Amino acid sequence: MTENLTTTISSASQTVEISRDFPTVMIGERINPTGRKKVLAALQEGDFSIVKQDAILQVEAGAKILDVNAGVPGADEPELLKQVMQMVMDATDVPLCIDTADPEALRAALEIYEGKPLINSVNGEDKSINAILPLVKEFNAAVIGLCMDDTGIPSTPEDRLAVAEKIITHADKLGIPAEDVIIDPLALTMGSDHNAGRIALETIELVAEKFGVNITMGVSNISFGLPDREYINSTYLAMAIYAGLTCPITNPLVTEIQTAVQAADLSMGRDEYGSRWIKAYRERQKKESES
Amino acid sequence: MTENLTTTISSASQTVEISRDFPTVMIGERINPTGRKKVLAALQEGDFSIVKQDAILQVEAGAKILDVNAGVPGADEPELLKQVMQMVMDATDVPLCIDTADPEALRAALEIYEGKPLINSVNGEDKSINAILPLVKEFNAAVIGLCMDDTGIPSTPEDRLAVAEKIITHADKLGIPAEDVIIDPLALTMGSDHNAGRIALETIELVAEKFGVNITMGVSNISFGLPDREYINSTYLAMAIYAGLTCPITNPLVTEIQTAVQAADLSMGRDEYGSRWIKAYRERQKKESES
Repeated sequence: MTENLTTTISSASQTVEISRDFPTVMIGERINPTGRKKVLAALQEGDFSIVKQDAILQVEAGAKILDVNAGVPGADEPELLKQVMQMVMDATDVPLCIDTADPEALRAALEIYEGKPLINSVNGEDKSINAILPLVKEFNAAVIGLCMDDTGIPSTPEDRLAVAEKIITHADKLGIPAEDVIIDPLALTMGSDHNAGRIALETIELVAEKFGVNITMGVSNISFGLPDREYINSTYLAMAIYAGLTCPITNPLVTEIQTAVQAADLSMGRDEYGSRWIKAYRERQKKESES
Repeated sequence: MTENLTTTISSASQTVEISRDFPTVMIGERINPTGRKKVLAALQEGDFSIVKQDAILQVEAGAKILDVNAGVPGADEPELLKQVMQMVMDATDVPLCIDTADPEALRAALEIYEGKPLINSVNGEDKSINAILPLVKEFNAAVIGLCMDDTGIPSTPEDRLAVAEKIITHADKLGIPAEDVIIDPLALTMGSDHNAGRIALETIELVAEKFGVNITMGVSNISFGLPDREYINSTYLAMAIYAGLTCPITNPLVTEIQTAVQAADLSMGRDEYGSRWIKAYRERQKKESES
């Protein structure tokens, strides 16, 4: 059994440790205009009030890290990403996951970030590796490595493991330790391939077993095109945590998601005396009685 | 990797195959007066209408096997068990799981049963092994082996594996093949030991890995004494299925349980084109619109 590595992410005032020995760390996914028309329109008009609200609500609901994406078509992404990040840093104290495909926007964001951020993401393409990993090193960040490369997303767990290995090896050559690489096995939708869930779960096991690194995943995609998505997402999330997922990118505001993560930690003996479960239950009760 | 064994259970008209290569088989738990005062009172008065209703509703909700327990304090258990079983066999076509601690009642039940039943249960005590396994052989049944013995329920997964091995070995000596032994790792409540869930999950993995046998478990006990039990039970169930549980004894009438089992099968690639998921969704919708 490979040793479980610990990834440390920080803001100016908070440190988050991610490991299979600790409770699951939820990375809040909501600060992202992709597929959210209201957020997109607000950002286009320079209105950051939804961003602020999303930041606060997600942290209240248990997110320990917030993903920040400002990918608005036609916008000046470096400038917009900085503004959104600044708003989130002003509104909350949690560390951020800087989510951009644009290396220029990434550098701009890294320059204003206080602490050790998580970068979302690098993939197995040489172009991506050469553009992103030097920034990870320069700014002493951690990075999410996606199991895809020039040929697309491999269809077998073994081939996805090979992409993870390529990213971890290149990071190591630049002096980035394995604990600062968090692998995303990539969950495709089971709506078009009923083996998509199984393949991602097996990838998690292989990567965790071989490298001991932390694992992230955007879980909601798994159920795209299928009905009753919250049941699928929450069930899948619990199984993925059992397989080795440590820091899902997800929506903590969905009760099924929140309880699945908490119950999964409880089931794996990561919640001493069930005290976090009981506390979360009381908070849900309080919220219900208030609404 | 050990080969996944297939357990075959049958009624007069139906055959159920249990294996890690097939969808999860739910064994309906509700025909049991333990802790159900209404059922207890009805059985004491010779009223079997609740039993009949429980049988029909559980099968409609997806139970492929029904557990039948007639443990009413002070009653003539051999006679009562036979009556309850006959009622269930008249009301539904599914195979039964005969649930009694009384070898005499077990023999009486086996004598009237048509098909190959599942016997619930034998444990690792010599007394239990010597009383139950010969009946399993004589009636060509399958049997649930509980991971406990004279010393109680072992506290480590390795010691529970040893009890499972003892039962499987003794069964083999009598000519009962391993595929006819289904192991129950025993889920104690996390309400009094926060490692109880993890220990049972690890036991499942060890037993499945070493023997390839099927695994059952009464899941609801895991959350005894904790709040929001349906969230814990459904999450735990999905994780246990991932670990190797194949035929949980559970309440299929609880939506969270039903969806967790179906979503777990979907997530493990056991639901081609997601067609069973979509069908179950439509049935839930229909039921909601009717109620």
